Amino acid sequence: MIGPRKATRTTQVTRYRGGASSRHRDSLAVEEPLEIRLSWMENGKRRVEPLAVTMRTPGNDFELVAGFLHGEGVVTGVDELLELTYCRGKETQEYNVVEARLAPDTVFDFEVVRRNFYTTSSCGVCGKTSLEAVEARGCERLGDGPQLGGELLASLPDRLLEGQGVFARTGGLHAAGLFDLQGNPNTVMEDVGRHNAVDKVLGHTLLERALPASDKVLVVSGRASFELVQKAVAARVPVLVAVGAPSSLAVDLARQFDQTLIGFARDGGFNVYSAPQRVV
Amino acid sequence: MIGPRKATRTTQVTRYRGGASSRHRDSLAVEEPLEIRLSWMENGKRRVEPLAVTMRTPGNDFELVAGFLHGEGVVTGVDELLELTYCRGKETQEYNVVEARLAPDTVFDFEVVRRNFYTTSSCGVCGKTSLEAVEARGCERLGDGPQLGGELLASLPDRLLEGQGVFARTGGLHAAGLFDLQGNPNTVMEDVGRHNAVDKVLGHTLLERALPASDKVLVVSGRASFELVQKAVAARVPVLVAVGAPSSLAVDLARQFDQTLIGFARDGGFNVYSAPQRVV
Repeated sequence: MIGPRKATRTTQVTRYRGGASSRHRDSLAVEEPLEIRLSWMENGKRRVEPLAVTMRTPGNDFELVAGFLHGEGVVTGVDELLELTYCRGKETQEYNVVEARLAPDTVFDFEVVRRNFYTTSSCGVCGKTSLEAVEARGCERLGDGPQLGGELLASLPDRLLEGQGVFARTGGLHAAGLFDLQGNPNTVMEDVGRHNAVDKVLGHTLLERALPASDKVLVVSGRASFELVQKAVAARVPVLVAVGAPSSLAVDLARQFDQTLIGFARDGGFNVYSAPQRVV
Repeated sequence: MIGPRKATRTTQVTRYRGGASSRHRDSLAVEEPLEIRLSWMENGKRRVEPLAVTMRTPGNDFELVAGFLHGEGVVTGVDELLELTYCRGKETQEYNVVEARLAPDTVFDFEVVRRNFYTTSSCGVCGKTSLEAVEARGCERLGDGPQLGGELLASLPDRLLEGQGVFARTGGLHAAGLFDLQGNPNTVMEDVGRHNAVDKVLGHTLLERALPASDKVLVVSGRASFELVQKAVAARVPVLVAVGAPSSLAVDLARQFDQTLIGFARDGGFNVYSAPQRVV
């Protein structure tokens, strides 16, 4: 990898519209982890610690780190930021680790700042590590699995909407639903966080002793991030349908586990980003 | 608080449409933190540790926790989950802390699981604590600040779109933009994560030595969560405009700091959830 990472990437997709399918090159928004490292003076010595990892689209990384540190109260002005640099070297993913060097007189309590973070999901510091972590967790490639018709798949977003309340639809709560191969909903859940809606659906399925869900389709409102594919793979769901766009890392992970990842499922059509053999 | 928490809540809003304003009661999706605690046997003794906090909409909390633990590989089957209970008592926010009791023979490595989490933002374990944390950080109520015309405000989402590239618009990258009081963009940034786009914009503004941004308007695609309001308050932005719905906690925080929070800014109209005196 030479030079900073790119914000978009192209990929091959199979596009379904009105009963016909065609192959296209399409753009993906890149999703990659950024580790934020803090370097500051403590008792006369410089201390360096990783502070947070966020899944982000590369570009304007220094601005991101500056804004993050200011928003979290680590710095209150620009003069407390001595330097922002990419960490490079064998062990650090180039351009995916930024170190913020604080001025000697910056006053903050590292333990308090760190404690203030809340966690949303698992992730390594780079896409590759993340994929390996899922594998190491005992997840194997999905089996041959079921096949579904394009028309049925195209109808699932509307069926998800039907499972939501009026407020949720208009007020913009995210929804996730698990459907059987005939397109009947098993369970539909809502949340302000898409990942929470998916956890609720798969948790319900676990408590009903219905995992692995290898004959089900998971449908989500909005976009498909790395995190959602990871959760679906862990539940052995062979087909994930998103109303919005998938990220680059979501596509990578789905391809690695041979999960059928569908995006832009709207207006009667959709794009297939991986394992198109399940769509007939 | 008696009984589990609700998923929606009503509030007063001022609705602007076609130059006229009116008062309405409207629904909000509730956003509250859920702390997930793990209890497991280690060296013959039961150990209890907080594992993660997620901002969620109350409802189906046990399913959420079960799905989260399964997705993260902490449990591989339902029999490893002995019990899911709400922690109640003086120190725990009732119904916002769930303890998962694992069966004695569950095999997992707590330190590895905890290390796998990545962090996205700061938050206490309850809304109140979160609000207090922002205050404690030295944030004060915003001053009287600027006043803006309804027509100008209604035009900002389109101006944000104009600042995005074609792929970003169609491919669904989130955008955030800082605008001056005449509606001219200072900076527009994009990311797969809405909070990252906001960090990039405010970080850019910090590095340009243009904080506090007390004469600016921050516009975000999608919804307004607690986290976005918090970042905007830290940057002293008096008006936050979201194309989508705000959450309950976002509204609470904006009201506490007298920030003008605008939601559903689309189709030439918008709703004002707090500090409507800045809209003329």
